[in-house]
This record gives sequence, structure tokens and C-alpha cells, in this order.
Amino acid sequence: MDLRIDKLQRIGARTEGVLCLGGGLPADELFPRRKLAAAFLSVLGRPQSGALQYGWPEGNEGLRRWIAQRLVARGAIDVHADDVIVTSGAQQAIAIAAELADISGGIVATEDETYPGALDLFRDRGAHPVGSEALGIPANAACAYVVAGASNPRGLGIDPARRAHLLGSGVTLLVDEAYGELRFDGVVERPLLADARDRTFHVGTLSKSLSPGLRVGWLIPPRARMPDALRVKRDLDLQAGSMAQAVVEEYVRIDDFDARLARARKIYASRAQRMIRALRTYLPEARFVEPEGAFAVFVETDLEGVDEAAALATATTYGVSFDPGSMFRPSGERDPFALRLCYSALKSDDIEEAVHRLSRALSDVRARKAA
Amino acid sequence: MDLRIDKLQRIGARTEGVLCLGGGLPADELFPRRKLAAAFLSVLGRPQSGALQYGWPEGNEGLRRWIAQRLVARGAIDVHADDVIVTSGAQQAIAIAAELADISGGIVATEDETYPGALDLFRDRGAHPVGSEALGIPANAACAYVVAGASNPRGLGIDPARRAHLLGSGVTLLVDEAYGELRFDGVVERPLLADARDRTFHVGTLSKSLSPGLRVGWLIPPRARMPDALRVKRDLDLQAGSMAQAVVEEYVRIDDFDARLARARKIYASRAQRMIRALRTYLPEARFVEPEGAFAVFVETDLEGVDEAAALATATTYGVSFDPGSMFRPSGERDPFALRLCYSALKSDDIEEAVHRLSRALSDVRARKAA
Repeated sequence: MDLRIDKLQRIGARTEGVLCLGGGLPADELFPRRKLAAAFLSVLGRPQSGALQYGWPEGNEGLRRWIAQRLVARGAIDVHADDVIVTSGAQQAIAIAAELADISGGIVATEDETYPGALDLFRDRGAHPVGSEALGIPANAACAYVVAGASNPRGLGIDPARRAHLLGSGVTLLVDEAYGELRFDGVVERPLLADARDRTFHVGTLSKSLSPGLRVGWLIPPRARMPDALRVKRDLDLQAGSMAQAVVEEYVRIDDFDARLARARKIYASRAQRMIRALRTYLPEARFVEPEGAFAVFVETDLEGVDEAAALATATTYGVSFDPGSMFRPSGERDPFALRLCYSALKSDDIEEAVHRLSRALSDVRARKAA
Repeated sequence: MDLRIDKLQRIGARTEGVLCLGGGLPADELFPRRKLAAAFLSVLGRPQSGALQYGWPEGNEGLRRWIAQRLVARGAIDVHADDVIVTSGAQQAIAIAAELADISGGIVATEDETYPGALDLFRDRGAHPVGSEALGIPANAACAYVVAGASNPRGLGIDPARRAHLLGSGVTLLVDEAYGELRFDGVVERPLLADARDRTFHVGTLSKSLSPGLRVGWLIPPRARMPDALRVKRDLDLQAGSMAQAVVEEYVRIDDFDARLARARKIYASRAQRMIRALRTYLPEARFVEPEGAFAVFVETDLEGVDEAAALATATTYGVSFDPGSMFRPSGERDPFALRLCYSALKSDDIEEAVHRLSRALSDVRARKAA
């Protein structure tokens, strides 16, 4: 976590008129406000719901059953409600798994670019994240961290060769399905958990698909590690929020969550297309792979030696912000200069305008470097 | 955390007719359901409230201002909104402080009995909790953990000599005010923070005074440790729940929280009195100090060598449960056999009945030992 970058991102977020291509936020307009309000009122009207009281560390029984059932339907037949711990978002599930996987001083194999919240955590715990797509998983890795279904920042699935490598390596897997249900093709892949139950820490969340403000995620540890996982969970914050859990349990009962997901995929796919067209129009030199899902396009430039904070400051003066590429690289490498551009939370017309502004900002960055 | 005890407590909690004297739960009937529902609807009706979206790791601005203002009003004048991190309950605030205080391998000085969630955390982090009321704070302690205002399990305030010792020791203070606003006399003490700002990790929560299901607590670290504290908070779960924070921010605007507190104190004081009378009637040999606040009476018996799990199992057959005393002892010592008895969540008549059942259960335990 670079504090200069953090400060600039905060300035961008609160400055009127700056279009934020950073952050990885879900679209506000997809939050099912009315259904959540109905769920909340229903839950508060039933004192026995326990929404305002303490609960057990593993979480709400009905919600855990729902989580397990969805995994079973995807082929992970050896998952039961009792195997699930509801966590305070996916980040906490990753933190618990990282503690149990005993990563301190060891190597964590990741994709060549990955989720910064996990990278920061691994580094702070004394581990060394290492990109392992091109190079393969080191034999001595403490674990492999995988963003499955649709990766972050690239929005790509795991190809069959990589999947076989992950399963064949015998390494402990920390599988983060944050975007697992948000592939544009609607395919929700067979979870790695289904094929490596006893060495997979499976992480899921509703932050991208329902609402991050609820802080409802989950961890399914290898069964033998469940008591340790519960101990760590209890140490960290006793339990996930009873209110949020009760609201979600009721929400999935009264709404058609899969229909919501289908709608969300359609909207995100259309925004992705809009961004890709804008990139081809305004930044034709940008290198990227078209995402298969999730919230962003990861764009590499041919620029080297760019001061990312200075570039972000420049972009902000042009009315646009982004997430600098080094945040996503296990090595923290700044070259080549890259950017994660999120289309998820911007209306279509704003996406085009944001990319247009960005192209002018990058011309400026390029001109200053040449000067 | 003894897993046998955990299992028995779960059985007690779900068995119809068992009166739970364990758990430390606030009274369900004190939750302001209508006001919270109004706050929730108001917040969901304003998309700009951010209730369903991601927020910053430090938490909701308005809520942090409210927390700081209440501390300033109590004499901690050097506390500003920017010094506050909203946490997922007090437990997470303690966990963050414990990480920053670098307790691993060191001594944590505590009261002679204290909050089990903190003791378990300290032990799991490789620290050695040591009771320091009778013996004083060891010179080499990594920090002192203090439950201020009204302690857990005894419900007692810090006497002036102990306060002077804590402040004079120069040790890092981890001050947990979970019950700080729930003294029966209505006195909310000057926070230790006010007199040791640069070496106090101040912990507060709404779990006892408003609702634990919201998971809204807070940490005020020494100012120099704020960046580290935010880094750890981000690693652990990114942020406390936006929805819960927004609801609380709105709730304190539309309700008279201090009037709620006054009512809660009155109800808990009356339940405490009921329990004390019942103890004098049915367990005249029990040793305890009358609580000045909080949720429980800590009762010591003259029994030695009691198997706590067996005693709890026996009590459950008599229709009552309790928290075994060893949970609260830094040493984990089982002798003399003791019990935390919570009056907080039971109606007055149930308190008397529960203590009556307990007296019969303990007679049984005594008889079996004698046999």
C-alpha cells in the first residue's frame, strides 16, 4: 500500500467531476434496495431472528446452508453447512486462510497480476508473493492464491492447463471466488474445492454480486482445519454481523438472486464492451486482453520508468483516476506502466468520457517524460 | 477456549427451558428495533449514504465524529474524528491493538479475572496473560489490558490506586471500555486515554449498549500508530460494515442515545439486585463482590478440583447454564471453582429461578465430589 497513491485516490474519489476508473466498486444501481429493505424489516419484526444479538463464530445457520447448497450444485458435493464460516467479507476469509496456511517467511504463488488486498496481506505477514502463471508454481510454495472464475485485475478464467497445474501441484490452494459468479458467459465454473477438498481454503463473498456494505463473505477450510479456523475467526472479531447475515438469509428467500446475477452480468458485459471500444478509439496503443468477467480491464502501456503517483495526479487534473499497475504485481514492479480501469461503477457514456480524458492525461505523461 | 465447554454452552443455548446465566448477552428487549428500522429505511432511501457500497478502512466520517465528541466530552480533549478507526466490534479493536503492541512471547498484564475473548487472543498470539491486580504490573510487560468503567466478569470500576499504578507504570495500555457506559451509578469515568494519549489503545463498542449484531466498535490508537493500525485493519477485513455504520450514524441522530443508556442502566441494576438477593437466598456460601455495572456477578465457591465441564453438564440437566470461572483467569486456573452468572439477558423472575436451579445443581456437584 503506497500512501501517496492512497491519498490521491481519496482526492479523486471526493472531487466533484472526477470519473473514477479505480476502486473496483460494484454498480450502485444494481443494489436491490427495495428487497433489502423488505428483508431488514421482516428480520427486525421477528425478535427470534437474532439479528441484533450475538451469534456463533461460524455464523447464521440458514445462510451457511444456502452457501453450501450453491457449492454442492456446482459439483463440490462434499460441502455441508457445518463446513462454512461466514466471514466479514472475502478479505477476512483470506486473512484467516493465510494464518492457517502458515505463510510467514514462505512463498505464496499467485497469478502474474492479482488482488492488491491479498498481496498487501501476504507481505505484511512476512510472505513473498510470486507470480506463477508464466513460471509455474514453485515447489516450495507455502500456498497458491488463485482468483478463480474471473480474475482481478484481468477478468480472465483459469485455463485448463493452469487448472491442471494447480491441482497437480499438491500445494495448498487459497481460492478466491470474489468474481466467480460474474463471468459474462454465465458459466460458474466447477470450484477447485470440488477436486482438492482437503487442501483448499475456499473463499467467497457477496460483495461484488449483492453489496459490499453488508460485509458477508465466507471461508470453507479443509475439514481438518475447521477448529483452527473458528479459533482464528473468534480471535479476530467473534463473528460476522448478525444483522447483515439475517438480512441476507431473508433476502435470498424473497428475491431471485440468480436472476439478479444474470442482470448484473449483462450490465457489466455491456460496460466492458463500451470500455473496450473506447480504448481502441482513444488509446489504440494500449495492450490488454478482453475480460471474460468481473469489473476491469488491465491495460499495459509501452511506457517505462513512470512515477505512478505523478501520473495519477496528472490524470486527476484531467478529471479521471485509475489504479496503478504495480499494486497488482506480486513483485511490485512498476514497468511497464500499467493501469487497472474499472468499468463496473460507471454509466456507459461516462466510460467513454473517462477513457477519452485518460488518453489526454497519458499523452501529457508521455510528453513530460520525453521533455 | 475449551471445546467441551463450548459444546455444552451450545447445548444449553438451544435446549428449550434451559435458563442461560452464561454468554454476556445484552437484553433483547432493550434493542431499539423501531428506531433502528427507521434509521435503516432512511439510509437506504439516500443512495449517497453509501450504506451498501465499499467505504474507507477507517470508517464512516459522521460516526467517527460522534465517537470522538463523546470522548472529548469525557475529558479526552486530544481526540479527533481522524484518530478513530471503526472496527468490527471491540474484539477486532483488541486484535489490532494486540498486533501493534507486539505482544508475542511477552507478558500482558490483566485484571485478576478478565474477558475470555481477549485472553484467548493473547494466548493464541503467543503472549502470556498475567493477573496484575494483587501483584502489580510486571516491569517487563508488553502491555496492560484493562476493562475500564465496569470490568468483566466482576462489573467493578478501577480504583484510584490501580488507576495511578496503570498510569504511573509507563506501560502500553490496551483499554477496553465495552461496559464503560453501563455503570449503575451513571458515572462514565474519565478515559485513561485522556491521561496517556500516546501509549493508550482505546477500545469501545456499541455491542453492550446498543446491539452486538451490528458489529460496530472502535479503536483509537496512539497517533503515531495510526498508519500501522489502518494497515492491519485493511489486511483483516478492509473495513467495518458500511450498512451497519450508516444505520448507527443515523440512529444516534434520531434517537436520544443517552436516555437509552440511562434506561438500560436502570434495568441492569435492578436485575443485578435481583440476582444478589437470589444468591444470598439460595447460595449463601457463595463469595462475590456486588457489581457496580455491566452484566454479571462473578461467584467463587469453596469447591476445589471440580471438573468444570462435568459441573456445567450437571447444571444443564437442572435447566441452567453458566460460564466456568477458569475462562476468566489469566492462568486458566480452575480452583477455587467459580462461575460467571449473567443477569443481563434474563427477566427478573427467571433470574431467581435460575439461581435456585443452580443451587440444586451445585449441591449435586458437591455431593458427587464427596461420594
